[in-house]
Amino acid sequence: MPETKSSSPTSRTRGVLAPVVTPFKTDLSPDRERFITHCQWLLSQNCGLAVFGTNSEANSMSAKERMTLLDVLVGAGIDPSRMMPGTGCCSMTETVELTSHAVKHGCVGVLMLPPFYYKNISEEGLYRYFSEVVQRVGDPRLKIYLYHIPPVAIVGITPKLVERLLKAYPNAIAGMKDSSGDWNNTKTFLDAFTVQTERAVSGFDIFVGSESFLLANIRNGGVGTISATANVNPAAIYELYVACKQSKIENRQSKLEQEQAQLNAVRDVFSSRKFPSMIAALKQAIAIYGNDPDWARVRPPLTELSAEQASLLAIDLKSIGFAMPGLEMDAQL
Amino acid sequence: MPETKSSSPTSRTRGVLAPVVTPFKTDLSPDRERFITHCQWLLSQNCGLAVFGTNSEANSMSAKERMTLLDVLVGAGIDPSRMMPGTGCCSMTETVELTSHAVKHGCVGVLMLPPFYYKNISEEGLYRYFSEVVQRVGDPRLKIYLYHIPPVAIVGITPKLVERLLKAYPNAIAGMKDSSGDWNNTKTFLDAFTVQTERAVSGFDIFVGSESFLLANIRNGGVGTISATANVNPAAIYELYVACKQSKIENRQSKLEQEQAQLNAVRDVFSSRKFPSMIAALKQAIAIYGNDPDWARVRPPLTELSAEQASLLAIDLKSIGFAMPGLEMDAQL
Repeated sequence: MPETKSSSPTSRTRGVLAPVVTPFKTDLSPDRERFITHCQWLLSQNCGLAVFGTNSEANSMSAKERMTLLDVLVGAGIDPSRMMPGTGCCSMTETVELTSHAVKHGCVGVLMLPPFYYKNISEEGLYRYFSEVVQRVGDPRLKIYLYHIPPVAIVGITPKLVERLLKAYPNAIAGMKDSSGDWNNTKTFLDAFTVQTERAVSGFDIFVGSESFLLANIRNGGVGTISATANVNPAAIYELYVACKQSKIENRQSKLEQEQAQLNAVRDVFSSRKFPSMIAALKQAIAIYGNDPDWARVRPPLTELSAEQASLLAIDLKSIGFAMPGLEMDAQL
Repeated sequence: MPETKSSSPTSRTRGVLAPVVTPFKTDLSPDRERFITHCQWLLSQNCGLAVFGTNSEANSMSAKERMTLLDVLVGAGIDPSRMMPGTGCCSMTETVELTSHAVKHGCVGVLMLPPFYYKNISEEGLYRYFSEVVQRVGDPRLKIYLYHIPPVAIVGITPKLVERLLKAYPNAIAGMKDSSGDWNNTKTFLDAFTVQTERAVSGFDIFVGSESFLLANIRNGGVGTISATANVNPAAIYELYVACKQSKIENRQSKLEQEQAQLNAVRDVFSSRKFPSMIAALKQAIAIYGNDPDWARVRPPLTELSAEQASLLAIDLKSIGFAMPGLEMDAQL
């Protein structure tokens, strides 16, 4: 049955989160030590941890591998209130298992893909799916961020679906991540669901899936970004986020737009079609700037950058003065 | 490393297989008893069991649920040499786990989706993925049927990929199922990879994903069909398969084409756009003809037929004289 409105205070996460890239060892098993270190570095840059996202190659890992890795992070002292694990699988049963596991760890929320195997799914079918998940998890701490990424999942999240879910589960449905890459789509959701209030409790919190829409998102009532490039450029993205939130007198619009343009220039390098994927390019950058070649490894079906592509990436990043403060600098740069 | 050609004799499965629909109880857990009964009925109709396919809602089940169900079938005495479980997941690790489990049970083959989360995947990435799976399973009994179903998985199987995999793993790569719905695509694979020989060992065995291409497939060197409608119409599909294989003198082409047209008429009913999905329509038909309403249940995100749609299905099936021999007939029909 639909939940009733809870009067208990809830804390929400906002700002900048990275879909944390997952390092793999030579045998392609997750590299726990490098993963912990990267998470700690991201936190030091004011960047939250959307572990097990698209850029984390989460769907290239088993449910068990993902739960074990979350246990490892919590065991290493990583603050669950800074973590929003991805838990959406094709099957309701696995989604419930991963979500319950994350909630029990005290994670601040979960980022949930719709079931993405079957295509042309009805709104009613998706509503039933998410309803089953909420009811089976059955925990008042549950906060779901719906994950709209139609270029990859194909199956998407519609305003009508959000409306129905919010009505039935106003506490469990906390917000969404829009990775459509289509500002008009984000604006539609912002206009329909964002409550302009200082109290976070009642809102539907919208994160953009690319920092290239960060300024526009904050200006229109959104709460931040969960972006792949936050894995390598967290400080600058966070700086724009903070500037956006400050009063307009202090931050002239032209300055904000200049910062936005600088973020876009970095993103453009990583999203270049000359690399096999943004994921592989991000990992290659960490390998370069951390002087740690093992970081470049990806799981099939993704492929690493070739040596030539890696050189091109280094040149492109150097040409825009890119840096990763706190990581060891590669002597070759 | 690539495997060397084995001289051991291998047995291949051919003919008609059903991607067995999976019954669910009211709590949406798999209904073991009805599943066993349906498998036994299919076998009695000369229909092999491609359990855990698209029409089985396999991707709506967890890896653990699928392995448990396979254990249950084997435990119930269902012959593994008649089973080709679907084992392809998004993650290499889960695919290896499911595949090893099926091979250890002595299943005649596995039907393997490519990893389907990431889109625009390179041939090299897919090659590495399947290579890892073959090598990690590491069992000479492994027979993989590559599963090409671009309307659903989006990620597909290309001739160049098959060529590379066959060269490296001539024993493990046994064939494919083409559910593209595009005869030209099937013909391309038949022309490139089918070896016209009575010895099954060296061939690449091509199944069509719809019995509407069965006659054309057998005429061009294919080995059969793995088709959703075999769940409800196995005897007639098998009859055409046998007739195709017999000498042309006995079976005038016009007779074969007439049988093919009759199969198509049945399929057209189930694939009608007036039903939410073919899967739901197939289950509804079993519910009707077996007088067992529980059979209609699907897992979200799929949805059942409405009462009105179920009535329309019954009328449509009656109008073409459809029957399911061996199932209890619904008194209402």
